Formats: sequence, structure tokens, C-alpha cells
Amino acid sequence: MASGEAPQPVDDPELERLYKDFDTAGLLPLWTQRADLMPTVPAPRALPHVWHWRDIHPLAVRSGELVPVGRGGERRAIALANPGLPGLPYTTPTLWTAVQYLGPREVAPAHRHAQGAFRFILEGEGVWTLVNGDPVAMHRGDLLLTPGYAWHEHHNTADAPMVWLDGLDIPLVAQLDAGFFEFGPDEISDRSTPERSRAERLWGHPGLRPLAATGRQDPPNSPLAAYRWAHTDAALTAQLELEDEGHAATVEPGHAGIRFTNPATGRDALPTLRTEMHRLRPGAATARRRTVGSQVWQVFTGTGSVELADRRFEVGPGDLVAVPSWCPLRWHADTGLDLFTFNDAQVYEGLNLARTATDEEGTA
Amino acid sequence: MASGEAPQPVDDPELERLYKDFDTAGLLPLWTQRADLMPTVPAPRALPHVWHWRDIHPLAVRSGELVPVGRGGERRAIALANPGLPGLPYTTPTLWTAVQYLGPREVAPAHRHAQGAFRFILEGEGVWTLVNGDPVAMHRGDLLLTPGYAWHEHHNTADAPMVWLDGLDIPLVAQLDAGFFEFGPDEISDRSTPERSRAERLWGHPGLRPLAATGRQDPPNSPLAAYRWAHTDAALTAQLELEDEGHAATVEPGHAGIRFTNPATGRDALPTLRTEMHRLRPGAATARRRTVGSQVWQVFTGTGSVELADRRFEVGPGDLVAVPSWCPLRWHADTGLDLFTFNDAQVYEGLNLARTATDEEGTA
Amino acid sequence: MASGEAPQPVDDPELERLYKDFDTAGLLPLWTQRADLMPTVPAPRALPHVWHWRDIHPLAVRSGELVPVGRGGERRAIALANPGLPGLPYTTPTLWTAVQYLGPREVAPAHRHAQGAFRFILEGEGVWTLVNGDPVAMHRGDLLLTPGYAWHEHHNTADAPMVWLDGLDIPLVAQLDAGFFEFGPDEISDRSTPERSRAERLWGHPGLRPLAATGRQDPPNSPLAAYRWAHTDAALTAQLELEDEGHAATVEPGHAGIRFTNPATGRDALPTLRTEMHRLRPGAATARRRTVGSQVWQVFTGTGSVELADRRFEVGPGDLVAVPSWCPLRWHADTGLDLFTFNDAQVYEGLNLARTATDEEGTA
Amino acid sequence: MASGEAPQPVDDPELERLYKDFDTAGLLPLWTQRADLMPTVPAPRALPHVWHWRDIHPLAVRSGELVPVGRGGERRAIALANPGLPGLPYTTPTLWTAVQYLGPREVAPAHRHAQGAFRFILEGEGVWTLVNGDPVAMHRGDLLLTPGYAWHEHHNTADAPMVWLDGLDIPLVAQLDAGFFEFGPDEISDRSTPERSRAERLWGHPGLRPLAATGRQDPPNSPLAAYRWAHTDAALTAQLELEDEGHAATVEPGHAGIRFTNPATGRDALPTLRTEMHRLRPGAATARRRTVGSQVWQVFTGTGSVELADRRFEVGPGDLVAVPSWCPLRWHADTGLDLFTFNDAQVYEGLNLARTATDEEGTA
Repeated sequence: MASGEAPQPVDDPELERLYKDFDTAGLLPLWTQRADLMPTVPAPRALPHVWHWRDIHPLAVRSGELVPVGRGGERRAIALANPGLPGLPYTTPTLWTAVQYLGPREVAPAHRHAQGAFRFILEGEGVWTLVNGDPVAMHRGDLLLTPGYAWHEHHNTADAPMVWLDGLDIPLVAQLDAGFFEFGPDEISDRSTPERSRAERLWGHPGLRPLAATGRQDPPNSPLAAYRWAHTDAALTAQLELEDEGHAATVEPGHAGIRFTNPATGRDALPTLRTEMHRLRPGAATARRRTVGSQVWQVFTGTGSVELADRRFEVGPGDLVAVPSWCPLRWHADTGLDLFTFNDAQVYEGLNLARTATDEEGTA
Repeated sequence: MASGEAPQPVDDPELERLYKDFDTAGLLPLWTQRADLMPTVPAPRALPHVWHWRDIHPLAVRSGELVPVGRGGERRAIALANPGLPGLPYTTPTLWTAVQYLGPREVAPAHRHAQGAFRFILEGEGVWTLVNGDPVAMHRGDLLLTPGYAWHEHHNTADAPMVWLDGLDIPLVAQLDAGFFEFGPDEISDRSTPERSRAERLWGHPGLRPLAATGRQDPPNSPLAAYRWAHTDAALTAQLELEDEGHAATVEPGHAGIRFTNPATGRDALPTLRTEMHRLRPGAATARRRTVGSQVWQVFTGTGSVELADRRFEVGPGDLVAVPSWCPLRWHADTGLDLFTFNDAQVYEGLNLARTATDEEGTA
Repeated sequence: MASGEAPQPVDDPELERLYKDFDTAGLLPLWTQRADLMPTVPAPRALPHVWHWRDIHPLAVRSGELVPVGRGGERRAIALANPGLPGLPYTTPTLWTAVQYLGPREVAPAHRHAQGAFRFILEGEGVWTLVNGDPVAMHRGDLLLTPGYAWHEHHNTADAPMVWLDGLDIPLVAQLDAGFFEFGPDEISDRSTPERSRAERLWGHPGLRPLAATGRQDPPNSPLAAYRWAHTDAALTAQLELEDEGHAATVEPGHAGIRFTNPATGRDALPTLRTEMHRLRPGAATARRRTVGSQVWQVFTGTGSVELADRRFEVGPGDLVAVPSWCPLRWHADTGLDLFTFNDAQVYEGLNLARTATDEEGTA
Repeated sequence: MASGEAPQPVDDPELERLYKDFDTAGLLPLWTQRADLMPTVPAPRALPHVWHWRDIHPLAVRSGELVPVGRGGERRAIALANPGLPGLPYTTPTLWTAVQYLGPREVAPAHRHAQGAFRFILEGEGVWTLVNGDPVAMHRGDLLLTPGYAWHEHHNTADAPMVWLDGLDIPLVAQLDAGFFEFGPDEISDRSTPERSRAERLWGHPGLRPLAATGRQDPPNSPLAAYRWAHTDAALTAQLELEDEGHAATVEPGHAGIRFTNPATGRDALPTLRTEMHRLRPGAATARRRTVGSQVWQVFTGTGSVELADRRFEVGPGDLVAVPSWCPLRWHADTGLDLFTFNDAQVYEGLNLARTATDEEGTA
């Protein structure tokens, strides 16, 4: 954004003096920079961008060999840095995305922070994440939550590494200067390895709310620590089958989708991060859509292509896509495509800033 | 309630004339009936009452032999009539409860109404309820919803009868003069017998919301047509196991419970009827509680006793209990007890009329 | 309602025995009374009715001469008893309406109750109502609130009587068995006579919320104890002037209206009673509307007529009208008409039972 | 923020190569910058700062002489640029604040934008702001709203200039890439000069909601275009008087305050900007408070001092103060102090990021 640019050079010496005096007084005139400050449509500095798994994964492996995990750095997480935001480890202006790599038997010690986080599991088996002391198993395709201020720690019980996607609201919280951070103990608080977390045992029954959790204020974060791939897959499968049977169930033809929600409220699982899973049939394509707010997408399985404004990228498993605000986006599936995505849409909804548009097919 | 009683006889002839003139003018003075109109604590006409399954069930069977199901009467449903509300088929002033019996191969034809309803399945197999054309299988222990204005019809595909509990808000809707009723076709609209309804296929995944159902107004009624016993049982079992492991999960020691909720909002499954399932360990007892609003309970499995004010009743499977407003209630389990219950508590919560009290053990 | 009627006489002795056995067991079959229990459209027992001020007022004056006000009877309030609900002092199945008369220097002592109440002032000057100890002046045209559980007491400082309309949710709370009642001290707690209550001084500034009242839960009842006629009148006047100037401001042509709301939430002033003031220009008429739920209207000033289903009544100042659920209603103004009304609509909205219809002009 | 700093220089050539490969791949490791990305408490770049009216006002006057108002620059608004955010015209990371100066007979033409705005009037008379075509008079002490997407234009009917404070959410909307902007006609759409806007005539009656505006979705922005000083002053005066009489009415002793709210919902007048007016008695001081989120304060009348972290500034009429997130803030009144303030607190509340702390007196 050019909003910080200096006032235009002027010939009038009085005006020149005025601008100097503004500067001295800590003031900046609107009239010289109005167009930059208030563009006619969103003009993000962030760029549409694709990161390929074939580039990321080997670097994650090399990090595992070269960089220890431990107190201070806290996590072996490699962030996707948007090329339009140079020097910043931000995937978009509000979303931080990283690939986290935990080697065999490694431990990432407990901490907590105001920032909300999720993990979407890409590869491996045998890591448990403890959320406020509750051990949560991690399997490929699962979504795990570590909401703001929840203590969390990871430990790998296996002899193989594990890799997952980390999504956080770090840039949003940084912009808002709302971050708090606290270290926990260095040792894992509980090394038990239950298949189901206590959170799931309490909250993981469709439509059934524990009575012990009624009568209190609704929790802003989902109490359900994990959303298992088996459920996600079944939900997407059912939508496409229902479509085949002639019933309204999909977002658009050939396009199934679910949102991860807080079972206590039906709203988003986390207050700052919307998380969803989408499935496209082979050959299907989405409408071309623009949305205010930014998005990150990851191909979970399958191959296809993604249109970002006027460019088109071939993508396959593990590839990651950053979509800035108001950038036209369209997905095409070659094989069936399973897509994980997260975004900040509910931030805009709460502020009455949400806006979307669907382009006619074939138009810009 | 004596609120309708005539003004006290008076000796003063002027006062007598005044009261007569009131009557002629369609007026009634407050001062002669204030105490009845506004009691110091709720003074329900409805009485605490127990209906035993051993009495109800044979009558249901006899009805099956003597009374056909069909258009007009609509359902072979036998209502529990509170002895404090003589002549009215109301279990409490707001709740209608009936045992419905559908014989082999019988059909209960489609209708719809403003009144909200659920079915809690007690016995048998092989009936499908269609809710707005969606066939929903019925199994023992399941809870099915037929929300206000939803078309619904039942048909028995089996050679054995089936029995379930019907709960409706008929008395509340009658008092509010809010009832509408409409007949549908006489023929079942769809005789297919899928194991899972479309509603469950779309909504029955814990915490996963179909994207096709986002962006619209939240539905006041749960879109999840059925809550299966397997899930309910698992949720209750988990709570008691978590209690054994030392975690907060139960309502009180030895007492697990879940509420059936609308997955789109986290609120009650139906706007006028709260539905819950409770489980008491062998030997456990609940606190002695009073609540504004009335309740119906049914023993699903197990034996024990229920205290209603100053009386205690032995109860077993199928027995039904009406609890009027503010009546002290306490459950004791001999064997483990599984209890289904429904009430109108959220009506009071919305009107700021909710109130509860827990008695100290041993006190009245 | 005929819902309590006995099963039809039957010839079949087995069936007869079945019905007897039902009766013994505390059961009632649905099939013999379904049509009464679940009518196709609301079939209220309450009747549309008009009470004329010329009949009520003299009786209120005579009551003032003959009946003392004091502890026990509590208030010299004369209730409008719907002729369709014989013996009950209910204006509709949910609304209690009374004319209250407080003689010179009289005191109505403090009490409180679960029932919510308002006062709409018809005649006189010089009474203060204390609401939780806050003295609130009463003037013609004002609306005063005494929400559920608020202590309230009245005292007349003048040498003339005062008359107002009392509206309460007594029938609703009775049906729900939710009433609690408590006596307060016999003596007025504060005899000061400020022109503005503390509630108004804190909350009576349009759009301005006291900071001391932020950060807590929103109050279910309006904290603004009084809505003054000067404001109500100005708001209605402005709507008609805006209409004259060509702007959308009225309910329909010639029909202005305001709702009394809780300034902390924008919702109804009381959770169980909706209160509104309407103004019709001379010659104007409303559409013919049906609404689920019942209403009471009072002519504040002016003359005109009211259509209730297929009858039409001439009405003038002070006349009161009961409108049962789903009864078509239409107002016609001869002179300009100012109409106060209260109803229970938000009860239905919260329970998803609300429904309205506007008839085409000229049709039934 | 140092979050973008390069990884620490390393000796290990393999590690060095890894970091280079990260850079090539568009990746940045967390472990080298975790402490900057996730500080233990908020570490805003924005600085606490005071701008004095004696510096600003002459520059506004000189701008009036040198710079025309017109299409393109749009407004003669001089923004307060936080010294910690060099080159950016942002008072805090979320709030844009400017002094706007409109000369005699000048016109600022119509435009609209996603950004929400208010005007707080400091000096002069005779300007009307049209909001969606509704002319709203501006007087000293008034607060005017021009919500997101509302067309707005200003014209000065007087022979003297007028000065007001502009507050917008420009930095927040810029960070979120949610800005849209549209030019309107160059000519003022309506040159009438009514004393009360149509918005005030409809909505400016305490607790009275126009019936024409019920039954629709609640408006996210306040429909009340102006909050008049007379009301604000009366509300603050009443709180201090109530305090004198022994009643709870103030924020803390000697400190009155009101929040400008949406009368349709009771929530903040604008979804992104909280606006309040505070009054301190002579000699009073506030507690020392930290809040997550940033604030701007302006002295409306009176003199006193403001503590910002460990510095204290003397302030008088017109002086402006920027308070970054989590910066301790304390006000001291010499004379009575009237303070206008706006902030972004409800943004944090909606995202579950709000947090405040009150320091013990005398401690840091």
C-alpha cells in the first residue's frame, strides 16, 4: 500500500512549509493520499500465491535434521511468507500458516497464547497434542484445535516423524496488539496415549450436549478438541450421494463442503479462524468467487488446478494456496479433489464488512 | 386454581350491588381473589403422578385390537391425563404425553401442525417415520423429531407392533391459541426403508455443518431428525467413565446426562420442548430439586424410586412420571437407571421466568 | 375448547370397557378428541369483546367509595373478564387487564411478584409509584413498568383520585405455574416526589447508555421505569409529518406507531408483554390483520370504530377491546385516534409460533 | 515490530543453506522469530502520544487558506500520525483520527465507503452533513455518524469556518483489505437546513422504536444519525447528581460516562468504533487501567493531566491523546474534565480477545 507515501512535491513554498509543519506536528493530510488510503476496491499488498509440497516437504525434513525443537523457538514450524508482504512470515494479512515437523520421540513443550490455532494433520502417526492437559491423538486428515489461552504441547511417541499444518491468527492479533504468551513446564504433563480425548468423549456425539455444560455461558471456542477424518470424509461422501439421489445437499453441483463448528453454539470452531473441508468430484469446478477477507487452501488429496485472478496453477497433494481479499478464485478438479481451507470470514461478518461476489462463468 | 371463585358473600347491600354491576359489565375485582390469582409460590392444579407400564401397555395392545388407525383420529395414541386436570388429556399444563401403538403393516397418514413433537422409541422395530418426505428409521432408544409444521407420517413394515412415546406441546399451544392443523395425502409418500435418513446423512456428523446450510438464518428446529440410541448410550457411558477417572463430566456424583440439541445452534432440539436422557449408577440419587415448569420422565431401563414432594414411588421400565411446577423431585437408582425426560424449561428461560432450587439433603 | 369432552358413546361393549379402563388408568385416547385438541386454525374460547369506559368508570368511582385499599387485596383493581372465559378474571388467555383506582391520599402497599406489569395512565395527577424504591411520577399518557420481581408501591399525594390501566401477564404465568408473590412493608419507603425518577435520569437519554451499566449481562427488563407521554406524542407526530413530507416512516398510510423498548437491548420493554402506541389520522383505517396471540387495545383519545371478525363497534376514549388469537382486526378513525395496545407477540416469536396474515381489503 | 527480522546469522553452513532455501521457497522459520511474533504481552509499535490543540488548530486554519476542498482529495482533513508508525497517517493501528476544517460556504462532495465514520463537533455552526440524503445539523459537542456505505456530504451555510474531529476505522479496514470507495455527485443533493434530521425525528425518542422498523433484521449501524450535546451533557450531569444523592450511577467516584449506542440493539453505535463521553469532577482521577486495543481521547472542555505508562502530560481543550494497546492510562482532572473518546474495544470482544486490568493505585 502506498498510503504511507510522502505528499506530492509542490512548487508553492507556502504549501511546502505547511507540509513541513504538518510533519513536525505529527500530522499527515488526507488529501494527498486519499486514493491510497481508501481504494475503490480492496487493493491488498498480499499476492495470490501457490507453494508446492515438493518444495516445502524436503525443507521440513532438512529442518528436522538440522534444527532442534525446544524452549524458546518452541516449535519446528516453517511459515509460508506471502511474497507481497516481504520480511513478514504472514501468509495473508490476517493468517499465519506453517508446516510443522516433529521428529521421532521429539517433544514440543507446553505454552499458551492469546492467538488461536488449529492443526490439520498431513502425514504420520503417533503424536499426541495435549490441550489443557487432555491428550489428543493425531491422525492424517484430522483437525485439532488449540484455542486462545489453551495450554498445549506435542510429543511424538513414534519412531517416524510427523507433519501437520499449523494455522494461527498471528497477523491479526499482531495488528491488533492483542498477543499474550506464556511458557509452561518443559516436561510433558501426561504421556498417556488414549485413542479418544476427554473432549471428544464428552462432546463428540452428534447433537448431544453434556448436561454438566449447560446453564453456563456458551463457550466462544469449540470444546471439541478434534474433528476426525472419518467423520469429515463421511459427511462429504454423504453430500455427494444425496446430490446423486436428487436432493439439495451440496454447495453447487459436484461440490460438497462442511464447516468445522462449535457444537455448543453452531458457530465457527474458533472465533478468529473459519475452517472448512471441501470435496470436488472429478471434473467439477467451483464458481468464480471473490470474497472480502483472505483465505488459505491446501490440497489434501487429488489433483486439479486453481485460478487466482488471471492465472491458473496446477496443484496436487500438499500444495498450498494464498488467496488475498477480493481476488477471484476458482477450483477445477481433475481427479476428485479434497481441499482443506481456513479463512477469517467471521471477523468480517461480525464487523459488518463481509462482502462476496460470484462472477458469471467465463467473465473476469 | 380457585381464581375463578365468586367474590365472597357480603352483607353490605351497596357492595353486593357493586359486585352485581361488575358482573353485568364483564368485570371482576382483584381484591377478592388476589391470593388465588397470585399465589406466594406456584400452586399447580396438576398433581405429581406415576403411570405404570404394567397398566398402560395392555391397554395399548387392546387398542391395537379394537381401534383402527386412520384419517380423522390420525394416530392410535393414548394420552396420560393428569388427575389434577380432570377431563383434559394433558400430562401437565404444557405437555402432552402419549403412548402410540402401531400394529403390523399399519399406516398413520401424513399431517402437519403447529405443535412440535418428538417420538422416543420403546419397543419394536420396522417403523419408518417420514418427516417432510424423509424416511427415518425407528429403533428402541432413539429420539425422533417432528418439529412444528413438518409433514409426518408413520408406516410399519414389520409383522409385529411397535410402541413409542409421543411428546407434544399441545397444552401450551392450546393455551396460546396458536394451533394450526392440515391433513396430507392418505398414502405414504415414500415406502423406502433406508437405515439412515437424509437428515442424519447431512447433519449427523459431530461438529460438522453442511456448507449448503450456512449463510441462512439459523433453523429454530433441529435439522437432525433422529438421535440414535447408540450415540446417547455412548455419551452417557463416557461421562461416567470420565467421572471414574477423576474428571468433571457428570451433573453430580453418579449422575450422567445429555441434552438433545440443534446442531446448527447448540440450543434445544425443539423451541418448545427440552429433551434429555439421564443415567444414574446403581445406588446413586439425585439432589432434591424444584424447578419452575413441569416435567415428564420415563424409566427407559432399570429400577429405582422417585420422590415427588412427600411421596415415594417404586418405578421400573416404561413407568412414567409427571412432575408439576415447583414440586420437589428426587430420583434413586436401585439398579442403574436410564431416564428419558422432557420439559418446557426453555419457555421459561426465554420469558425470564425460570427459577430452580436445590434442597439440602434431608430437608423438605 | 371441547378438548375435555368425553369419548363418543359407543355401542361396542369391548370398546366401552376399553374406554372405562383408560379412565381408571388415567389415560385418554387421542382419536376421539383429535379435532378439538388440534384445530385446523386457532379456535380460542376467548371472545372478541369491547368494554366501554362509560360503564367501567362509574364502577371504579363506586369502588373507591366502598372498598378500602390495603394489605391482602393489595390493589383496587377491577379486571376485564372475557365473556368466553367465564369465572376467570382474564381479558385473554395470556393477558390480565384492570382499571386501577387510587383515591385521594391513599396508599397501595409494597409487594413484588414474578408477574410483569405496566401501568398506562388515564386520568389524574399526583400519584408516585416506587419501583425498587425509586419514586416514579405518573401523568396522563405515561407508561410505567414494574417488571417481574420488582418491588412496587403506589401513593397518592393529591386530593383527587387517579385512574390507570394495569396490564399483567397473570394468565400466562398462571398457566405456566410460575408465580411467586411476596409482601413488602406496609409503609411507603420514600415519600419524596421527584419529577424524574432515578431510572429516567440514568437511562432516559436517546441512544446514551450509562457506562456503569456496560460489561454486565443485558437486563431482560427495561431499566427505564417510565416512558413519558411527551416523548410518545412527539414520536407519533414526527412519523406523520415525515409521511407528509414523502418519507417512509409509518406502518401504513395514515398510521403511525411506536413500540416501547428496552434501551439496553432494543427488544421489548418487558419479556412477556409487548406494549405499543398507535396513531391514526382522521379518516384513516388499518389493514385487516390476523395475528396468532391475543391483544388488548384501549382508545386513549379520539373516536372511531373497530372491526372484530364480522362485527363493528363504535369506540371512544377509554374504551377497551380484547382481540383473541387469529381474530381479524381493523381500526377506523373518525377523528384522529390514539390507541394504546399490549399483547404477547414476543412469547410466540421466541417459541417459533408467531404467524400473521393481512386480508385483502374488502374480503373476509 | 521486529517480526520480519532476518534469521540470526549462523555459522553452520548447512543451516545457512537451509535458510537460503527457505527464502527461495517463500518460507520463514518460526524458531528464529518466535519471540517477536508472539510477545509475552502486547508490544505495540504505536506510541502513547499527545497532540496539542495549540499546534493543530493554526495548521488547520492555514490549510483552509492554502488548500481547496474538492473532488479527489475529498476532504480537508488532517490526520494524527502516530510517531511509532512512521509514514502512515494512523493514530493507532486500527484508528484514523483527523481534524477536518470546512471554510465558509464550502462544500465537501458526496462519497461513500466501507469504512465507518463519526464526526465530533469542536467549533463553529452552520454546517449540515447529509447522510444518505438526510440533512443533519452540526453543533458543538454533537456526535454524528456516517456508517459504512452511507453516502455523505458536508456543506457550510455560514460565513465562518467549522472544525470537527473525524474518526474512522481506516487502518483496521486497510489491514483487513475490506475497503470499497465510491464517488457521488459533485453537487449537494439537498440544501435544506432543518434543525432535526429525519433520523432523529424517527429514532430520537428514548426507548421508543418506530413500528415501521420492527420485524426486520436489526440494523448493525445505529439509525440515529446524531447524538446531541444537550442530551449527552444532561446524562453526565444526572450521573454525578445521582452519585451525590448516594446512588450507584458512575463508573467510579467522580467519574461519569456514557456510551453512544444503537437504539435498535443497545449495542455500539457503529460495529467497528466504540464512542463514549466521560466527565470527571474537579480533582477526580480515574483508576490506572490497561486495555487490549487502542484508544483516542480528546479533551472537550477543562484542564487536567493524563498519565500514559510512566509519563504525565498536562492537557487542555482540544488536546488529543493516542493510547496504544495495554498502555496504562490514568486521567486527572484539575478543573472538571469532559472527555470524548473512541476505541475499537468491541472488535476484540467479538473475537474473544478483550482483556483489561486495573492497577492498584500507586503501583506501576
